[in-house]
Amino acid sequence: MKLPLFLTTYQTRINRVLDARLPSADTEPSSLHEAMRYCVLGGGKRLRAALVYATGEAFGAGQTLLDQAAAAVELAHAYSLVHDDLPAMDNDDLRHGRPSCHRVYGDAMAILVGDALQAFAFECLARSSACAAPVQQLLMLEVLARAIGSLGMVGGQALDISTDPESLAAHSQALDSMQQKKTGALIVASVKLGALAGDCQDPLQLQALHDFASKLGQAFQIRDDILDRESSTEVLGKTQGADSANNKAAYPAVFGLQAAKERAEALYSESLKSLAGINMQSATLAALAKFMLQREF
Amino acid sequence: MKLPLFLTTYQTRINRVLDARLPSADTEPSSLHEAMRYCVLGGGKRLRAALVYATGEAFGAGQTLLDQAAAAVELAHAYSLVHDDLPAMDNDDLRHGRPSCHRVYGDAMAILVGDALQAFAFECLARSSACAAPVQQLLMLEVLARAIGSLGMVGGQALDISTDPESLAAHSQALDSMQQKKTGALIVASVKLGALAGDCQDPLQLQALHDFASKLGQAFQIRDDILDRESSTEVLGKTQGADSANNKAAYPAVFGLQAAKERAEALYSESLKSLAGINMQSATLAALAKFMLQREF
Repeated sequence: MKLPLFLTTYQTRINRVLDARLPSADTEPSSLHEAMRYCVLGGGKRLRAALVYATGEAFGAGQTLLDQAAAAVELAHAYSLVHDDLPAMDNDDLRHGRPSCHRVYGDAMAILVGDALQAFAFECLARSSACAAPVQQLLMLEVLARAIGSLGMVGGQALDISTDPESLAAHSQALDSMQQKKTGALIVASVKLGALAGDCQDPLQLQALHDFASKLGQAFQIRDDILDRESSTEVLGKTQGADSANNKAAYPAVFGLQAAKERAEALYSESLKSLAGINMQSATLAALAKFMLQREF
Repeated sequence: MKLPLFLTTYQTRINRVLDARLPSADTEPSSLHEAMRYCVLGGGKRLRAALVYATGEAFGAGQTLLDQAAAAVELAHAYSLVHDDLPAMDNDDLRHGRPSCHRVYGDAMAILVGDALQAFAFECLARSSACAAPVQQLLMLEVLARAIGSLGMVGGQALDISTDPESLAAHSQALDSMQQKKTGALIVASVKLGALAGDCQDPLQLQALHDFASKLGQAFQIRDDILDRESSTEVLGKTQGADSANNKAAYPAVFGLQAAKERAEALYSESLKSLAGINMQSATLAALAKFMLQREF
C-alpha cells in the first residue's frame, strides 16, 4: 500500500475506533465526556497510531489488539497536549486550529480531561482481546506505562519546565535527553507496541526497532522545532513561535536552522540504517519516517 | 490478627513497597522524583491498601501481586489528591499536615507529579508477577482504569466542580452519585483488586463484595464530610472547613450533622449485611469498615 493511502486508511480507522470507544457526550458526567471528545476527535495527524499499525502489520498482529494499542497511544498523546497547553505549563490557546481545551472548558476541567484520557488509554489497552496471549498484552501495558511516566514523556516535560534553557543549550546531550523523553519515548513505545502485538520476541529485532524509533523521534522533534520557527500559525494549527516566545531550548535556536536541518537529515538516515538491519517488511515504516520528517505541519 | 496490629503491619509494608518502587530522588529528573516521593511517602492512612490486603488474604492471594495492587491504589489516590489540591481545583495549601505539592514545587510540577503517579500506578500493577495468571492481572488493570477514569474517580471530581452545589443538595441521588464516583469507585476497586488477586471468580461473591465496598465508600465519604465540619486542621492534617468554604455540597451541610451521622451508621450496617452473605473469612474487612467510620482524622 502506498503511504498516502496507508495514512488516510488508518487515520479513518483510528478516528472511528476512538469515536466508538470514547463515552458519548450524553453519558454523565456529560461536560467531561464532551470535553474529552473535543480534545481527542478534534484533529491530529495520528502518526503514533500509524506507527503502531505499520509495525504491527509487518509482524502479522491482529487488528483488534492493534486498534487497542493505537487508541492507547493516541489517547496518551492527546492527554499530554491538554496538560501541556495549560496556563501553568506552556499556556497555549490554540491546538489543531481550535481553542485549546482549557480555553473552552476551563483550567480545572482541562486537568480532569487529561487525567481521564490517561486512565482511558490504559483501559483501552487492558481490554481482553483474542488477538494475543494475555502475557503479551501485560507487557504492552508495562511498555506504555514506562514510556509516558516519570522516566519518559512526563519526565521530559518536567526537565523542560525545570531546567534553565541556557544550560540545556550549553549541553546538547541534556537537550537530547530531554527531547528523547518528552517526544521520543512515546514514538518508541508506538513502534514497540506494534511489534509486541505481533508477538515479536526476538531481542535483536526489538533492539533494532528501538534504535529506529529513537532516532526517528529525535529527528521528528527537531522538525517540530524547525516548523515552530519557519511555518505559520494557520498551517500548524497551533501558535507558531510559541517555543521561542516561551524561551524554550530547541535545536534551531541553539545550533541555527541550517545545522538543525542537517541534524534531522542525518538522524533520519541513521534511523533507516537501523531499520535495514531487521528481517521484516519495513517499506511502510521507512515511508512513514520520511513523511514524518518532510511534513509541513 | 487484631485490627490495630493489622493496620500497622500493612501500613509499614505498603510504605516500604512504595519507598522501594518509587524512583529515587537521585534519578533524573530529580525534581520530579523528589516531588513524587514527597507526595506519596509524606503520610496517609493507607486505608485503600489495607482493603486490598484484607480482601486478598481472605482469598489466599499471593503477597507480591497484593503489593502491586496495594501500591497501585495508593499511587492513584495520591495522584488524585495532588491534582485536587491545585489552585484551579480545590486550592488547598495543606495535605497530611504539610504544604501541599504545588505549594512546594509549583503548579506545573504538581500537574506533572499527578500525571506521573497515575502512569506509575499502572506500571506497578502491570509488572509481571508469578502470583496470578496474566489474564487475572489484565482484568485487575481494567478494573483500576475504569475505577479512576471518567466514569469513576475523575468523573466524580468533574461532577463536583461542574454541578451547582444547590442542585446537588436538592437531589440527594445526584449527591450520592457524585460521591460514589469520586470516593466510592476507588474503594470498591481496592476490594475487587484484592479478590481478583486471589483469583475469586464467583460472580455472587464479587457482587456481594461490590455492595459491601460501595456502601462503605458512601459511609466513608459522609464521615469525611462530618470531620470537615467537626474536627480541626491540626487533627485532620488538611484544612478543616475547606468544603464549606468552597461551598461544596456535602451531607452534613444538606441534611444536618445528626442526620449525616445516622446515615453513615445505617450504611455501615448495610455494608456489614452484604459482607455477611459472602462465604469468606471477613472479620478483618468488617473491623476495617468499623475503623474507617469511627476514625477521628
